[in-house]
Amino acid sequence: MKRIFATLLFVFALSITTHAQADWKNLFNGKNLKGWTKLNGDAEYKVVNGAIVGTTKVDTPNTFLKYNEEFADFILEFDFKVDDSLNSGVQFRSASVDSYRKGRVYGYQYEIDPSKRAWSGGIYDEARDGWLYPLTNPISKAAFKKGAWNHARIEAVGNHIRTWLNGVPCANLLDDRAAKGFVALQVHSIGKPALAGKQICWRNIRICTENIEQNLWDKGAYAEEVNRMNNILSEREKAEGWMLLWDGKTTKGWRGAKLNAFPQKGWIIENGILKVLKSDGGESTNGGDIVTEQKYRNFELKVDFKITEGANSGIKYFVDTELNMGKGSSIGCEFQILDDKKHPDAKRGRNGNRTLASLYDLIPAPINKPFRSGFFNTALIKVNGNHVEHWLNDVKVIEYDRNNQMWNALVQYSKYRVWNNFGNAAEGHILLQDHGDEVWFKNIKIKPLP
Amino acid sequence: MKRIFATLLFVFALSITTHAQADWKNLFNGKNLKGWTKLNGDAEYKVVNGAIVGTTKVDTPNTFLKYNEEFADFILEFDFKVDDSLNSGVQFRSASVDSYRKGRVYGYQYEIDPSKRAWSGGIYDEARDGWLYPLTNPISKAAFKKGAWNHARIEAVGNHIRTWLNGVPCANLLDDRAAKGFVALQVHSIGKPALAGKQICWRNIRICTENIEQNLWDKGAYAEEVNRMNNILSEREKAEGWMLLWDGKTTKGWRGAKLNAFPQKGWIIENGILKVLKSDGGESTNGGDIVTEQKYRNFELKVDFKITEGANSGIKYFVDTELNMGKGSSIGCEFQILDDKKHPDAKRGRNGNRTLASLYDLIPAPINKPFRSGFFNTALIKVNGNHVEHWLNDVKVIEYDRNNQMWNALVQYSKYRVWNNFGNAAEGHILLQDHGDEVWFKNIKIKPLP
Repeated sequence: MKRIFATLLFVFALSITTHAQADWKNLFNGKNLKGWTKLNGDAEYKVVNGAIVGTTKVDTPNTFLKYNEEFADFILEFDFKVDDSLNSGVQFRSASVDSYRKGRVYGYQYEIDPSKRAWSGGIYDEARDGWLYPLTNPISKAAFKKGAWNHARIEAVGNHIRTWLNGVPCANLLDDRAAKGFVALQVHSIGKPALAGKQICWRNIRICTENIEQNLWDKGAYAEEVNRMNNILSEREKAEGWMLLWDGKTTKGWRGAKLNAFPQKGWIIENGILKVLKSDGGESTNGGDIVTEQKYRNFELKVDFKITEGANSGIKYFVDTELNMGKGSSIGCEFQILDDKKHPDAKRGRNGNRTLASLYDLIPAPINKPFRSGFFNTALIKVNGNHVEHWLNDVKVIEYDRNNQMWNALVQYSKYRVWNNFGNAAEGHILLQDHGDEVWFKNIKIKPLP
Repeated sequence: MKRIFATLLFVFALSITTHAQADWKNLFNGKNLKGWTKLNGDAEYKVVNGAIVGTTKVDTPNTFLKYNEEFADFILEFDFKVDDSLNSGVQFRSASVDSYRKGRVYGYQYEIDPSKRAWSGGIYDEARDGWLYPLTNPISKAAFKKGAWNHARIEAVGNHIRTWLNGVPCANLLDDRAAKGFVALQVHSIGKPALAGKQICWRNIRICTENIEQNLWDKGAYAEEVNRMNNILSEREKAEGWMLLWDGKTTKGWRGAKLNAFPQKGWIIENGILKVLKSDGGESTNGGDIVTEQKYRNFELKVDFKITEGANSGIKYFVDTELNMGKGSSIGCEFQILDDKKHPDAKRGRNGNRTLASLYDLIPAPINKPFRSGFFNTALIKVNGNHVEHWLNDVKVIEYDRNNQMWNALVQYSKYRVWNNFGNAAEGHILLQDHGDEVWFKNIKIKPLP
């Protein structure tokens, strides 16, 4: 099945790439590196037999060979062949400016990954936000050919970026981080001398910037869409019933958990990010928690969050703001947000049940959870009646059923035992916690379920 | 449906009772109490309009009017009419001897219960073991007619005792407590003077002791069988796959949890009862726990147990005898056995999770569990893969699923957290616990499941 799918796509790809040669321009002349400039590191790029050959070198950072022109919308194609042990990639819509990390190249990268992970064709945001489109589909992962020439394709039109590897769809990304930038060939830095001299080769590098629409590949063969646009729903998300729980600009739909209005202090909105500010690290001692005005029963809730060093916060659900009218946080089940390495609460509780993504004080998230330190992470909470799941960056980390004897027995062991019938409410508010540390939120989306 | 069922049975009953009048003998002549003797209490029995009328009286214990003859196998029929607020009954195969509670009448009683509970037709073991056949079937419960004459029937043949009320099957009991005894009409003692003067009337009291087999009612219309015979499986139980886990006489199939053989002390077998003996109240400090030689995976396990005052014991399952080779009890999930009122452990743990029938230290049994103080109680443990249930006297009191995050989180809060992967074993031994208190066991039966 996998083989048939890949073969069909490959044949289809061959037939279409023969069209409209006039719309394409070669970025590499096959003879020398005219038009290209080396940046950042000191790895070597040579032209050998009509291919650019990059070679790894010890004691030098990531090196980039950039093409000296910026492209906005385009289709880029190239062939590559890589040593088995070498990670590499091709930058697009990228930049190098003195004001950002002293000229460090950053931006989208078409991943080249011959490792067992096999994420070639995925999209990494180099030196900025990390993985935007990790490769999970086994058909895409199987497209890479070891030790042979591979054919890559990138379509970048507006906020829509798609990739293919050997005719197989890999990434399908909605993103608005960069509208234009340069193309560059990466030679990765190496940790140990044994990896010096490894090679990555490119050839047939060509770009289409004219009549793009006519040269796009079939819409039916896309990989699964990932939307990384800030506070904007994709058409597909809208069709699936997702709604923005926060508009990215105002406090509309939210209030203080113990207030009739949004808190006057402690929270700010900046560049499409909702930030709870640093105070004394106390629980709801500054602006206090904020909650949705609406209550929710069955839903999928997504929240992108980024922690600052040592931070503590949380996303609560089934929140009853009437329960605790005194000091402290409002009462509900909590998807814990915590800097596990720097905040002391990670070692409290029982068996790690206060670490990030845990159901706070009740069920610990696994130790090997896919937390991405220094980046935005995506929390997903699924509620279907009594069945609840916590997901972190597309991996399910917690699963439980409430409203039963075992749930109640577990609650009785936790600090929630003082709250009658804790966690068993049919519906409740969604809450973002003020725990006196700076944490950033965006892309707060909910899909109500029947 | 209920009405049709009852009506059909009633018609059927009328047709059959007209046969073989010659086999029957009237116990009451319709005129006076010749052949009857009053025992125990001082309530009044009079003959009024062809019926024996019993009347309650203050400050007198249960009173019985016994027929001066013993019967072994028989069919007994009578009509009764009772005041709405008066509990009563008819004894059969009963006795009164100086050596047992100074002549206190004891033995089987056909229950007469006009209360909302509606257990008329059930079988109570008066002044001995209490309820042998409580009435749970709603069709049987609906058979009683308030304020009117009701027709009762008892078939007692060997160990098989069946009852009907107004033609509706009520009890279907296998029991070997008494092979013969007298018949007696009960006037219950009353707690408050307001209940003085309440009446219960009997008439048409007749017994069949000849050609019993031909006079028995259809086997198809029995109520659900309850087997109270000691350490004997009924034919139905055998057909359903039940096996005796203990033979009622020897130590066969059992060993000390930390021994290769049965303990030399601390346990005795007496009159079909397996007794763990009183020592110092410590955990496995006398004879130690005993376990089945076999391991069990999926099963239903039944154990009748009777506690002495202040006792502590337990039934464990999924027991791994290799886990704890040191002091104390062997490790497994425990159906707790405890005198909740007199043993201090009932107040320890969390939220009652060390009380009788609880999953020890993990999940508390409900406070209103149907424990029968002073009698044998039946523990039932059902295991189907990861789903486990505790039942007490036919009522489900605990339900949980193991081998999941919530289970593991709960275990981490309990004293079992020191045992790796506690409770998640696919199979294990069955264990009876020596906790240094005297507790009696019998009818230990298992039905292995696929």
